[in-house]
Amino acid sequence: MNAPTALSHLVPEVNQRQVPQAFLDALVARFGAQCSTALVVREQHGRDESAFTTVPPPAAVVFAESTRDVADAVALCDAHGVPVIPFGVGSSLEGHLLAVQGGISIDLGRMNKVLAINPEDLTVTVQPGVTRKQLNEEIKSTGLFFPIDPGADATLGGMSATRASGTNAVRYGTMRENVLGLEVVTASGEVIRTGTRAKKSSAGYDLTRLMVGSEGTLGILTEITLRLYPLPEAISAAICSFPSIEAAVRSVIQVIQLGVPIARVELIDQNTVRMVNAYAKLGLREEPMLLMEFHGSPAGVKEQAETVQEIAAEFGGNAFEWATTPEERTRLWTARHNAYFAAIQSRPGCRAISTDTCVPISRLADCLLDSVAEADASGLPYFLVGHVGDGNFHFGYLLNPDDPKEREVAEGLNHSLVARALRLGGTCTGEHGVGLHKMGFLVDEAGAGAIDMMRTIKRALDPKNILNPGKIFAL
Amino acid sequence: MNAPTALSHLVPEVNQRQVPQAFLDALVARFGAQCSTALVVREQHGRDESAFTTVPPPAAVVFAESTRDVADAVALCDAHGVPVIPFGVGSSLEGHLLAVQGGISIDLGRMNKVLAINPEDLTVTVQPGVTRKQLNEEIKSTGLFFPIDPGADATLGGMSATRASGTNAVRYGTMRENVLGLEVVTASGEVIRTGTRAKKSSAGYDLTRLMVGSEGTLGILTEITLRLYPLPEAISAAICSFPSIEAAVRSVIQVIQLGVPIARVELIDQNTVRMVNAYAKLGLREEPMLLMEFHGSPAGVKEQAETVQEIAAEFGGNAFEWATTPEERTRLWTARHNAYFAAIQSRPGCRAISTDTCVPISRLADCLLDSVAEADASGLPYFLVGHVGDGNFHFGYLLNPDDPKEREVAEGLNHSLVARALRLGGTCTGEHGVGLHKMGFLVDEAGAGAIDMMRTIKRALDPKNILNPGKIFAL
Repeated sequence: MNAPTALSHLVPEVNQRQVPQAFLDALVARFGAQCSTALVVREQHGRDESAFTTVPPPAAVVFAESTRDVADAVALCDAHGVPVIPFGVGSSLEGHLLAVQGGISIDLGRMNKVLAINPEDLTVTVQPGVTRKQLNEEIKSTGLFFPIDPGADATLGGMSATRASGTNAVRYGTMRENVLGLEVVTASGEVIRTGTRAKKSSAGYDLTRLMVGSEGTLGILTEITLRLYPLPEAISAAICSFPSIEAAVRSVIQVIQLGVPIARVELIDQNTVRMVNAYAKLGLREEPMLLMEFHGSPAGVKEQAETVQEIAAEFGGNAFEWATTPEERTRLWTARHNAYFAAIQSRPGCRAISTDTCVPISRLADCLLDSVAEADASGLPYFLVGHVGDGNFHFGYLLNPDDPKEREVAEGLNHSLVARALRLGGTCTGEHGVGLHKMGFLVDEAGAGAIDMMRTIKRALDPKNILNPGKIFAL
Repeated sequence: MNAPTALSHLVPEVNQRQVPQAFLDALVARFGAQCSTALVVREQHGRDESAFTTVPPPAAVVFAESTRDVADAVALCDAHGVPVIPFGVGSSLEGHLLAVQGGISIDLGRMNKVLAINPEDLTVTVQPGVTRKQLNEEIKSTGLFFPIDPGADATLGGMSATRASGTNAVRYGTMRENVLGLEVVTASGEVIRTGTRAKKSSAGYDLTRLMVGSEGTLGILTEITLRLYPLPEAISAAICSFPSIEAAVRSVIQVIQLGVPIARVELIDQNTVRMVNAYAKLGLREEPMLLMEFHGSPAGVKEQAETVQEIAAEFGGNAFEWATTPEERTRLWTARHNAYFAAIQSRPGCRAISTDTCVPISRLADCLLDSVAEADASGLPYFLVGHVGDGNFHFGYLLNPDDPKEREVAEGLNHSLVARALRLGGTCTGEHGVGLHKMGFLVDEAGAGAIDMMRTIKRALDPKNILNPGKIFAL
């Protein structure tokens, strides 16, 4: 995703602390060529895929190659009161990587080793810079796979830090369910371990789950132990068109309520189908569409598919198209994979603002239909895709970055959507995290009391506020 | 489980703080008949199913009927620096409920309403005093069920607080995976909410998971939103005997590694089969045995069962016996349900000390076989049952409570077992929690750094150390 131009509403407060020269000298003395102050390197580490582009870059970038490197860098930051922001591949959508309070970036990209594969236990331990595609490549011979797929080829450190999920979460869960244990560098530069390789434990506070989703504000993850899954014996994919978004969503609700263990079920609205047809010449029916995937034994997959087909038929679903070979599956999923690029191309020069609400599935139709009506009424072009099995969906408002009015319209739609999702018992962010963009929404969602508890934990574990400060909530 | 007589090694440090008369007066003024200082009531709330019996009871018991009651009681405790211990049905095995630092007990048993059933979303919101059997009774008409089954008919508050699990966890996860959101009374008597009813969220720190397993030391749970599951279309149960524990365990490992979604797989060793035969006249083959349950569609269950039967046959499993009706299933599971009572009966006057280690499944055979050899060599009678699909198992050492030597032998076996489990990458407690009994083991398992982080969180969220003080770790 290209970085959209900054919105007037979205200029974060910047209050960069001074980085003492003595600190920079100590950093260079310790890290030599592993430390860069070149502007181009700093700029590359001072932005992400969010709408924020007005924040000056960090003062230096350390390329960590070991847990020791991370611990030493954090200890120096602690000694000098300098902020430190962990960096994976920079695919955050919410401004997580921006140095709003200054400080340095720690690039964990060189810590990209798969440390231990335990096929018998269905676990793997990786360094944080390993990306999800790299991991699946390296474990291919074991017959196992790591299912979490947020779209981008993000690092497992970044995915853990933002509690990411994606298309497979409806069956396999999110990073919350799939991180078993961690090695963490704390704010004082100490190294601790959380969790074990055992599948379950009641041994004290769940520090693993506290770290997962803490967005680099409570510690820097230096090792991650993950659950793996046997590659399904059979995989089958299908697409199906529906007369309306409501019909598609009602089908999904019934599939989930019946307990069909569907592995993926993605909604694409008719706008997006039209955009994808234009972009990739797919000739798909220009109606809302579900893309589905079934994993299991050959008989199990057949049974799941039959059940879903029956349900879809009840709601007017038609033009079911099936694929079982990897090539055919890839072709069917083209529409989903190209949705973003097709949408961007549909309005030359536009930028997309992506939403991330998630609601209880019974409220999904209400939330979606009202939001679609509002977006239609606004006149702003948009695309709509969703991990609808989980109640999570993304509008992408396509706006002319040079038109402040359109920016206002997009932000207005986003605010209205989040307010609706919260009223319906949902969350402002299903999988992207809070970062800078959703700090206001988080207060609405969690309430002052819960935010106070988060702040109290942050202050206790990071008394100098050096770990990715200024994110999630104001201190 | 009857409370075993205290072991000499297991006398907890008691350092009860003074409870000011002004506090007791204020408590009675606020709660009237909802507050009791009768010795019999206090004694009933000052013990649990653990081996600890030497701790004086709390100074008073408040029977809370609402969140407001809990908040007001905690606010009074906060004002006077008085400890407060939440109480469900008293089925803790680890001393969680003992007033080692004095204070009062809050009995949540009257907060036993199912507040909201959302069948479309597969969620339910309950008060903490609802027990798991009550919940399943109240939601029966929805076609849904709550699978977590720790054996005892514990409250959902207690199960959340100890991160409980049990026989179904191999398929449905533990309380960690199945609590979606909470209402919590904090140490200052404020009421906060964590989580939403959405299936996933990346909205800030995971306070829900921090509270789950915190054993009443970070807050008192007053509402719990849980995941439910569709009742399986078909359920099939089976028992199968094996020539050795190793053969049984190796079968289970292969079943898990193949990804068979088995719902339950419990090991019973031959000692226990012999005890159960004597107790319930079952006439089972006196060999190690697996009890299994399969959930799914009729075809899916058949397929799972066939796969498992093939694997079992490879490892010498025989005498497969199947059951599909509820009555037949209950009969097959009699051996498991009666294991504890049969064991206790096998040695009149004995008490059982139960272990709770959990290891990565590839280490299960090693951990079990070495521990069985050690237990056999000790001469102490024991029973052995296990949620082996998760790598979790329980030895019950059957000792003469009047013989200090036997107590020492039992504690020695337990220490040796925990040390072995930790060496093999496991945990000292799969599902019972730390309480008083495992505080030493937790230090060995988590390490000083992680314990320090837990302590820092505890001090920050409960600065007066009034929430169930003296549990999990020393402060």
